[in-house]
Amino acid sequence: TKFGVKKIWVQIQSVWEICKEDTGREIFALKVGVTVLLVSLLVLFEAPYQVFGSNIIWAILTAILVFEDTVGATFNRGFNRAVGTLVAVILAILVAETALSCGYLAEPIIIGLSMFMIAVITSYMKMWGALVQYEYGFRVTLLTYCLIVVSDYRIGNPIKTVIDRLYTIGIGGMISVLVNVSIFPIWAGDQLHKELVKNFHSVADSLQECVKKYLEDGSEKSKITMASIDAFHDEPAYMRCQSTLDSGSRFEALAKSAKWEPPHGRFMHISYPWFQYVKVGAVLRHCAYEVMALHSIVHAKIQVPYKLRVGLHSEVEETSNQAAELVRNLGRDISCMQWSVKDSHIKRLHNSIKRLQSSICFQYSYMLASSTFESPIPHNPSKSFTNISHIFYHLPYQREMEEETECYQEIKGKQLRRLCSWPPREADVFEEDSEQNIKMRGIESTAMLSLTNFASSLMEFVARVEHLVEAVDELSKMAKFKSALLC
Amino acid sequence: TKFGVKKIWVQIQSVWEICKEDTGREIFALKVGVTVLLVSLLVLFEAPYQVFGSNIIWAILTAILVFEDTVGATFNRGFNRAVGTLVAVILAILVAETALSCGYLAEPIIIGLSMFMIAVITSYMKMWGALVQYEYGFRVTLLTYCLIVVSDYRIGNPIKTVIDRLYTIGIGGMISVLVNVSIFPIWAGDQLHKELVKNFHSVADSLQECVKKYLEDGSEKSKITMASIDAFHDEPAYMRCQSTLDSGSRFEALAKSAKWEPPHGRFMHISYPWFQYVKVGAVLRHCAYEVMALHSIVHAKIQVPYKLRVGLHSEVEETSNQAAELVRNLGRDISCMQWSVKDSHIKRLHNSIKRLQSSICFQYSYMLASSTFESPIPHNPSKSFTNISHIFYHLPYQREMEEETECYQEIKGKQLRRLCSWPPREADVFEEDSEQNIKMRGIESTAMLSLTNFASSLMEFVARVEHLVEAVDELSKMAKFKSALLC
Repeated sequence: TKFGVKKIWVQIQSVWEICKEDTGREIFALKVGVTVLLVSLLVLFEAPYQVFGSNIIWAILTAILVFEDTVGATFNRGFNRAVGTLVAVILAILVAETALSCGYLAEPIIIGLSMFMIAVITSYMKMWGALVQYEYGFRVTLLTYCLIVVSDYRIGNPIKTVIDRLYTIGIGGMISVLVNVSIFPIWAGDQLHKELVKNFHSVADSLQECVKKYLEDGSEKSKITMASIDAFHDEPAYMRCQSTLDSGSRFEALAKSAKWEPPHGRFMHISYPWFQYVKVGAVLRHCAYEVMALHSIVHAKIQVPYKLRVGLHSEVEETSNQAAELVRNLGRDISCMQWSVKDSHIKRLHNSIKRLQSSICFQYSYMLASSTFESPIPHNPSKSFTNISHIFYHLPYQREMEEETECYQEIKGKQLRRLCSWPPREADVFEEDSEQNIKMRGIESTAMLSLTNFASSLMEFVARVEHLVEAVDELSKMAKFKSALLC
Repeated sequence: TKFGVKKIWVQIQSVWEICKEDTGREIFALKVGVTVLLVSLLVLFEAPYQVFGSNIIWAILTAILVFEDTVGATFNRGFNRAVGTLVAVILAILVAETALSCGYLAEPIIIGLSMFMIAVITSYMKMWGALVQYEYGFRVTLLTYCLIVVSDYRIGNPIKTVIDRLYTIGIGGMISVLVNVSIFPIWAGDQLHKELVKNFHSVADSLQECVKKYLEDGSEKSKITMASIDAFHDEPAYMRCQSTLDSGSRFEALAKSAKWEPPHGRFMHISYPWFQYVKVGAVLRHCAYEVMALHSIVHAKIQVPYKLRVGLHSEVEETSNQAAELVRNLGRDISCMQWSVKDSHIKRLHNSIKRLQSSICFQYSYMLASSTFESPIPHNPSKSFTNISHIFYHLPYQREMEEETECYQEIKGKQLRRLCSWPPREADVFEEDSEQNIKMRGIESTAMLSLTNFASSLMEFVARVEHLVEAVDELSKMAKFKSALLC
């Protein structure tokens, strides 16, 4: 039993850990509790009950139905409920008065048909592109209309009932909104702001994680199989980056809610550009696509030999670190609402990309010169030397020039084979050569392709980061960020 | 006025066009109308009203609230409502009886506190990861609990009221579900099936559109700017492909609904693998990411000259057409629930990729040999000839061998410059050379990179299509597709 108790204790602790990690949930739950308690006071004391009668339940219904997690969403829902109820009340009174005046026989027919019509019209309109965001309003209109027309007209004095109900709905909605705004308000704008910043950091993290994995000794190789295409549990940043890819619809929903919020906290000016956040998020997702591409190169079946990869270690690491640093900087700037990214940051990144490029040139030559590739060597006129020396003039590797020029032919050979025997798995269709040979060659050349692909994906990532810089710059202007304050 | 009438007529026609294009909306709206009409009959005739009294409004409420667009979602919501109501009723009766027996003073305190507790617990649980899908159930529990405890205990005979209400809620729910299933049912499974197939076609279309754009004469060049990063209105397939990227959450929602649906139509066996559809969708999105990469190459600022691109016209077109055809075939197979993709399809695709590869080798050499690049030509020992001839042995271009070998040095030169001067826009940091020169060189080399990038992205797309074939194969086994029937 001692073991059993311990087990239960561990269970309780793990649940407690989950509870602690997101306090937003607890605050939300307590706020709902307070709202319900406040509304129930209305009912539990006799005085309000004497005034409104059983209509008081509408205060409870409204308070619970309008209460959403963010302030903006609550406002939006409250607005939908208010407008929907008003429209329904006006329609219902008009139709019901008409029906009553048409006599005993026509009345049910008119009421039935009007319910059918309202149901069709509201259901049709709430599916219409631009009106989807008012879906709740249409639902409320239909519900309220049916309730008033069917039920209240059985009771005497329908108009007093309807007006009482409007009052109680108003009271319920007000309590809901007040509690939501005054007790630890959760602003959709704040959420959007925080999640965007978080996405910047997860893209940066997963870039570095991916590069680190690539530069590790690849003795154990994980393959992308169907089962694991979405699951790399040993790479937490990758998982977060994946969720970045799916953040589009959430960002849009938050921006829509944020639009309803009054100026608050740090977002004090009117018409704060929330939709620019969605745009920045979209550009950031374009960067994340490139991280996914890098990731799939890292996890491809055929890899460039470790010795080749490790030769580029410092350059790849430097480039990726600087790119990640820039992305993090942008995230921090948004977080602090300032603009501190200078051209020098971007220049430094470009410089490290250039070092990576020249290093690939050098590394390529060097590794291939020392490779085991042996073959009869006929001499062949070459006209490239001057060009190449001209190009290499500004690189730090002039000393190795001789060595390099000698092995260009090798590189070229490898590259041609690379181009001509991808993909490796269908090598069996070549019939002129022994199968094994071709297969080996295919694997070798795909390995080469993998390194250049990795480098050029890294460059593409940097190119997209430039778009990101533009987008954040635009945001900083629209949202009037301060320039270069300490955070 | 004649002009005005015409204008209005055009407006009406355009709205009519939109209405015609999606008949699902109309059917949904009419179904809601029928449901409301049926429920209202319960109220409009005197007999049921005599039995249930004003509780009859709960039938209307339930019918409207439970009615969702797909059968699965309606079942799910109905289940949530049923369980939520039952739990609330049991809790409410227990608490209310306890409170009543505690005397006049303790009663409001117990009821108020119990409402607070239930509000906090349900709100907390509905935010809990695994329980989010039952959100509506928790909401219903809270609502119903509050209504019963607060309102019904003011009226005499609360238990009869509660049981009457359960009946009416049951009736409302039944009518809603029956109408939904019997009149033009919209099955979530069907929707998922159709949308997955549609996504296959849009990925295939946008691949072909993208390749076509690349092979067009690029005299007019569109740039990716911040404003247009998500909007290429002249490329309808691209827009559809974009929506494929965001389909993840929609697929998951549909699969969740589909799980609730009984076997129907063509999906007759129990526990049909709906979640494999979501997986296939994820793999398809991985393919779509690659189309996005191709798209960004097509719209990059710097392009390889048209004459170079056009030289590869037939090979690139063939490869992309075959890849698109394979993707479309997979889509059609899913659509017909059969498995007709043969290894020969895949082999043909590989063959065309190989033709593309060798063509790049050849094209490269040829175009560069005829380029305007002139420079002093010192002769340099080269050891590559045998290797290259060995590699080129099985290619259809042996005749041009001599010419090719001569210009390899040129290619290499170009490639080195390419590697060493990306990105072009920061060329001003090179200080050893005249700026203009470097800039030109940078543009030239990036242009080269663009062609190899395009080709290797196309190859990566094909590699991912192989994953797609595996995923669809697995689906075909799990869902017991027929093999090779005509559609």
